[in-house]
Amino acid sequence: MATGLRIDSFAGAAPENSQGEDFVRVGVIGYGYWGPNIVRNFHTQERSRVVAVCDKSVKSLQRARQAHPDVPVTENWADLLEAADIDVAAIVTPVWTHYELAKAALENGKHVFVEKPFTRTTAQAEELIELAERKHLKIMVDHTFLFTGAVRRIRQLIGDGTLGELYYYDSTRVNLGLFQHDVNVIWDLAPHDLSIMDYLIKEKPEAVVATGERHLNGVADVAFLTLYYPNNMIGHINVNWLSPVKVRTTLIGGEKKMLVWNDLEADEKIKIYDKGVEKSGDVYKLLVSYRSGDMWAPRVEQTEALKIEAAYFIDCILNDKKPFNDGVAGLHVVRMLEAADRSLEQKGKIIRL
Amino acid sequence: MATGLRIDSFAGAAPENSQGEDFVRVGVIGYGYWGPNIVRNFHTQERSRVVAVCDKSVKSLQRARQAHPDVPVTENWADLLEAADIDVAAIVTPVWTHYELAKAALENGKHVFVEKPFTRTTAQAEELIELAERKHLKIMVDHTFLFTGAVRRIRQLIGDGTLGELYYYDSTRVNLGLFQHDVNVIWDLAPHDLSIMDYLIKEKPEAVVATGERHLNGVADVAFLTLYYPNNMIGHINVNWLSPVKVRTTLIGGEKKMLVWNDLEADEKIKIYDKGVEKSGDVYKLLVSYRSGDMWAPRVEQTEALKIEAAYFIDCILNDKKPFNDGVAGLHVVRMLEAADRSLEQKGKIIRL
Amino acid sequence: MATGLRIDSFAGAAPENSQGEDFVRVGVIGYGYWGPNIVRNFHTQERSRVVAVCDKSVKSLQRARQAHPDVPVTENWADLLEAADIDVAAIVTPVWTHYELAKAALENGKHVFVEKPFTRTTAQAEELIELAERKHLKIMVDHTFLFTGAVRRIRQLIGDGTLGELYYYDSTRVNLGLFQHDVNVIWDLAPHDLSIMDYLIKEKPEAVVATGERHLNGVADVAFLTLYYPNNMIGHINVNWLSPVKVRTTLIGGEKKMLVWNDLEADEKIKIYDKGVEKSGDVYKLLVSYRSGDMWAPRVEQTEALKIEAAYFIDCILNDKKPFNDGVAGLHVVRMLEAADRSLEQKGKIIRL
Amino acid sequence: MATGLRIDSFAGAAPENSQGEDFVRVGVIGYGYWGPNIVRNFHTQERSRVVAVCDKSVKSLQRARQAHPDVPVTENWADLLEAADIDVAAIVTPVWTHYELAKAALENGKHVFVEKPFTRTTAQAEELIELAERKHLKIMVDHTFLFTGAVRRIRQLIGDGTLGELYYYDSTRVNLGLFQHDVNVIWDLAPHDLSIMDYLIKEKPEAVVATGERHLNGVADVAFLTLYYPNNMIGHINVNWLSPVKVRTTLIGGEKKMLVWNDLEADEKIKIYDKGVEKSGDVYKLLVSYRSGDMWAPRVEQTEALKIEAAYFIDCILNDKKPFNDGVAGLHVVRMLEAADRSLEQKGKIIRL
Repeated sequence: MATGLRIDSFAGAAPENSQGEDFVRVGVIGYGYWGPNIVRNFHTQERSRVVAVCDKSVKSLQRARQAHPDVPVTENWADLLEAADIDVAAIVTPVWTHYELAKAALENGKHVFVEKPFTRTTAQAEELIELAERKHLKIMVDHTFLFTGAVRRIRQLIGDGTLGELYYYDSTRVNLGLFQHDVNVIWDLAPHDLSIMDYLIKEKPEAVVATGERHLNGVADVAFLTLYYPNNMIGHINVNWLSPVKVRTTLIGGEKKMLVWNDLEADEKIKIYDKGVEKSGDVYKLLVSYRSGDMWAPRVEQTEALKIEAAYFIDCILNDKKPFNDGVAGLHVVRMLEAADRSLEQKGKIIRL
Repeated sequence: MATGLRIDSFAGAAPENSQGEDFVRVGVIGYGYWGPNIVRNFHTQERSRVVAVCDKSVKSLQRARQAHPDVPVTENWADLLEAADIDVAAIVTPVWTHYELAKAALENGKHVFVEKPFTRTTAQAEELIELAERKHLKIMVDHTFLFTGAVRRIRQLIGDGTLGELYYYDSTRVNLGLFQHDVNVIWDLAPHDLSIMDYLIKEKPEAVVATGERHLNGVADVAFLTLYYPNNMIGHINVNWLSPVKVRTTLIGGEKKMLVWNDLEADEKIKIYDKGVEKSGDVYKLLVSYRSGDMWAPRVEQTEALKIEAAYFIDCILNDKKPFNDGVAGLHVVRMLEAADRSLEQKGKIIRL
Repeated sequence: MATGLRIDSFAGAAPENSQGEDFVRVGVIGYGYWGPNIVRNFHTQERSRVVAVCDKSVKSLQRARQAHPDVPVTENWADLLEAADIDVAAIVTPVWTHYELAKAALENGKHVFVEKPFTRTTAQAEELIELAERKHLKIMVDHTFLFTGAVRRIRQLIGDGTLGELYYYDSTRVNLGLFQHDVNVIWDLAPHDLSIMDYLIKEKPEAVVATGERHLNGVADVAFLTLYYPNNMIGHINVNWLSPVKVRTTLIGGEKKMLVWNDLEADEKIKIYDKGVEKSGDVYKLLVSYRSGDMWAPRVEQTEALKIEAAYFIDCILNDKKPFNDGVAGLHVVRMLEAADRSLEQKGKIIRL
Repeated sequence: MATGLRIDSFAGAAPENSQGEDFVRVGVIGYGYWGPNIVRNFHTQERSRVVAVCDKSVKSLQRARQAHPDVPVTENWADLLEAADIDVAAIVTPVWTHYELAKAALENGKHVFVEKPFTRTTAQAEELIELAERKHLKIMVDHTFLFTGAVRRIRQLIGDGTLGELYYYDSTRVNLGLFQHDVNVIWDLAPHDLSIMDYLIKEKPEAVVATGERHLNGVADVAFLTLYYPNNMIGHINVNWLSPVKVRTTLIGGEKKMLVWNDLEADEKIKIYDKGVEKSGDVYKLLVSYRSGDMWAPRVEQTEALKIEAAYFIDCILNDKKPFNDGVAGLHVVRMLEAADRSLEQKGKIIRL
């Protein structure tokens, strides 16, 4: 190859003390926006090393070399997936490539760590899940937010009954760009919320209504999703690529307490309000009264989420555990995205799940 | 009457120098949450006086007396509407009473100032508009926000082309309570946004999709409206009675500039961002690029909106002008509310307007 | 008098059921910026009524009449102070007039409610205190902030040991104007902080250092005060009439917890941080370690402070109690202001108290 | 050496194409908190490379190796300073070591890049400046803030007269720790402000007043500085290691406009207010009036300040230019710190400069 970046073996990059089950060798495909974080985090774990980086852009590979002179690079993903001394393929590429790359990885006996959203269709996701099971390999979908201190804390607060029965979950996730060519704003931004809701809320949504509009490059850049859950619980997601300000705020209303999660706050990301409305018995009189008490902002763990996630995946592989953010979790999100797209095309027609 | 609050004539309360066209005598029906503001503002104008206050609650009337010892009060709205020396009936009561009271007022030859939303149905609104026209009387619907410095400034910025063609209008209006018995959260909070959008946006919406849920007293307390406009412009309104925090934020995206209106900011209510996305010509390559420039917060007039509105209504009456927030403007809002209710009941079914 | 505002007797304004000790009749001198609040609050208490308002400006008196048609007004303060049917003189005038008016009031047997700062000199304050004692009359200095929910909550948090031993108290109180002619920015803004500190902090300051500068009308418009307390506790007050933004923030550092009071927050005025520094024993090694825990914002009572203060003064008069914000409390503040002025003139020379 | 970290020559680490004047080889002493940023920035410049890293901690050197496997490390600073193939010594160590290290570097013919504050005493600073001049070597003191987009923009706004004549400069720089052993909070935090003020304000301060208190480890952890300038301009710096919240806010008041710089804002770091006070001519009447206009937040360059600073120092060396943040600039700051210490010890006694 003209670039001189081709590699024949990645083995040299693995630490000398690597032997059998105790160590995971990761090959990373895709070194664009998010890839460098994947490489850095898998490369600095105690029980893993990145042994190859692949990208079709020579410029990206040069960036990889500068940051990690000890890691071989290649332009050819097939080389990487076929290499014997790689245990995990981390796929950090656009969504339309996930299926092909993940399938090849699994067929070559590699575990798969793949960016969200998992695949472009539910059929692809189902096929990959089936293939991985057959091959006894792990799939982890990179829903990074599930490993943040904030989401783990909220899960705890819902799980232990602090909030009480949930009334609604309302997320606003808007900013200027990044524009995608192949997917709309729902596929770009809503997977965060959909995976978080899947993780936090015990019940599963029964139907989705999506509205939105396209203004610039033929795909929706502003969109609004409503998710109907059992027991009158309702979800709402506001995603927008054309907002002058960045907002990452989620309101969660519960019977006992209410919560505001502002992910842009440096400290005090989560605030829990002892506020609420209480039903009184008499059906003929005023039915509700208000309660207003203290607010409380619990300390939230600050460790980088991707670091925790990488360590968790390594542990799942080395100890043969099933990750909770596995292919099935990824499939749940893809199913919601497909339904949202169908609703969006029909201007808000309800899609039963 | 046992309460001793009954009055036979309100004339004594009008200033001695009142004569003919130059002065407006206002009778106010309803002295609950908003009524005191109406009384105070009409009573302190140069060319109007409040000459009677009516409420069915004796306690409310006592509050009125304490605040305005010079203004007669009554429990009987028919007295007020039949009094010869009253020019304007200000109706500050629950929406289900508006039609009956406004109709009686018009039939008694009074101009009508009425709380938003105008009526409970479009049919009622149309009948009142027709009656007022026949009687040569004015109707003003109290869409107070249209008289704020913020809304007037935004209208100017849209009107003079500063924002360019509009892409979207997205309002969040959430807080804890007040719960209504007779109407849902859409009828309570969305009339603000609907009247503002009607005032700011040149085009009219073509369809509405509403989703939401009820949790406590049988009416929706959380709801989301999408409004489809011509030319891919889209509107969105998020209203919620169960939010632990109060939010009053509107994002407006335009082709040239983008705007954030946070009505809870003491200063800097409006921020205009020289930010945007530009389409580039080549359909096969990256289609959009970003622009990020200065932000600018214009000074916003701070005069109380209701004071300006009251003066404007008096001027409309004395000089026979048609208020822009007249019955027709009120009808536009009621039509949207009716459509939203129909969509909500059918879980987001699109309703063409 | 040409204005026709003169009154001969105020008795008619008092409620008919007023008799003896159970009712307090208040005459208010000064109806400028703050006076209307004083009148409104004393006039709407159950056990007091405003029976006269005095101002040398006819325009101010007209405003008073419009707001309270039932309350007689006068331009002549001597009339008011000599009237037999007045129990309390509320002095809401510039500080240089306080001594003369309060003295006349006390000599006429009236209790005195007087704006902060109490007097222009400590000698004046001492004389008034002595006179009131001799006459068995009450003085209350209007340090309104002491009656806010925020200050009362902070006092409780310090008193019950939540914060632990105090390290520092640091207040920033800046905004654009109001410019005063007769006093500098320290006399205008710092009395709030000085009275609050006097109320919250058990120990008394031992010395003060003040720096600052004048730019426009010959008096300091920017100033910084440092107060030295026993046990290394330190206070700091930053006052400024030339700030483009309004800031009302106080940091209080304690051994156990730290507190931020932002008085401009609608909710969450007080935040208590479970953060701190701990000394470790080994004097030769790292001496401190950090602790970072939850944050907590207690609900703060929202009742108007002046309403509570007025009720408290009435109770002190009717039940012969000594108010805690009495002349002596006012004197403490005046003494600090005098010392600050002396330090300021000598560019920060320390003044022992 | 037992650690095996010793190096004999650093030449191998320099790029092959390095020749003569066109390339700068940097040795970095100190790889603690800030050192990694220095190494990264000098190592990724086009015209410089880090060719050695020195730290007395083996653990720090291991961190350096992991981040930069291509850069030799050593525990012995003398080795580094005596190496022939090093052009610049970057000294990123505690302040009490600066003089000795910088002196040795200069005597060995190395240019010096040194952390702020420059030295522990003015005498040391003066000696180093004189030595550098004699040896025709450059000193740059790392006042990084001078290279931020915010400070450069403010300098421009002051320089072009936008703010008008300055009235005051008031900085609050508080947070929880880091505690230092050898210096107090003034030496730790105030050098930022002092260097920025030296850079922004044309006039030099004439005197300083410092107050403060120590609570934990024997050095002041809370301190307040006032700087007197000619023409009634006043400066104020509030530094505190015991604040539960981090604040980085500077108010700058000018005759024409006022500015707020909040360095913790992601966007909108600088806000310029068209607000002010105007003197009117009549000395007997109201002397000032207020002006309140728009606010404007200029876009601020986001490039990492240290990257710009490193490039600038390389340019100064290769093209024999005098950096503006040279030893003399560093000396100005040390002189202020010394004066502040003397004032602090005498509880606010004014120290003339």
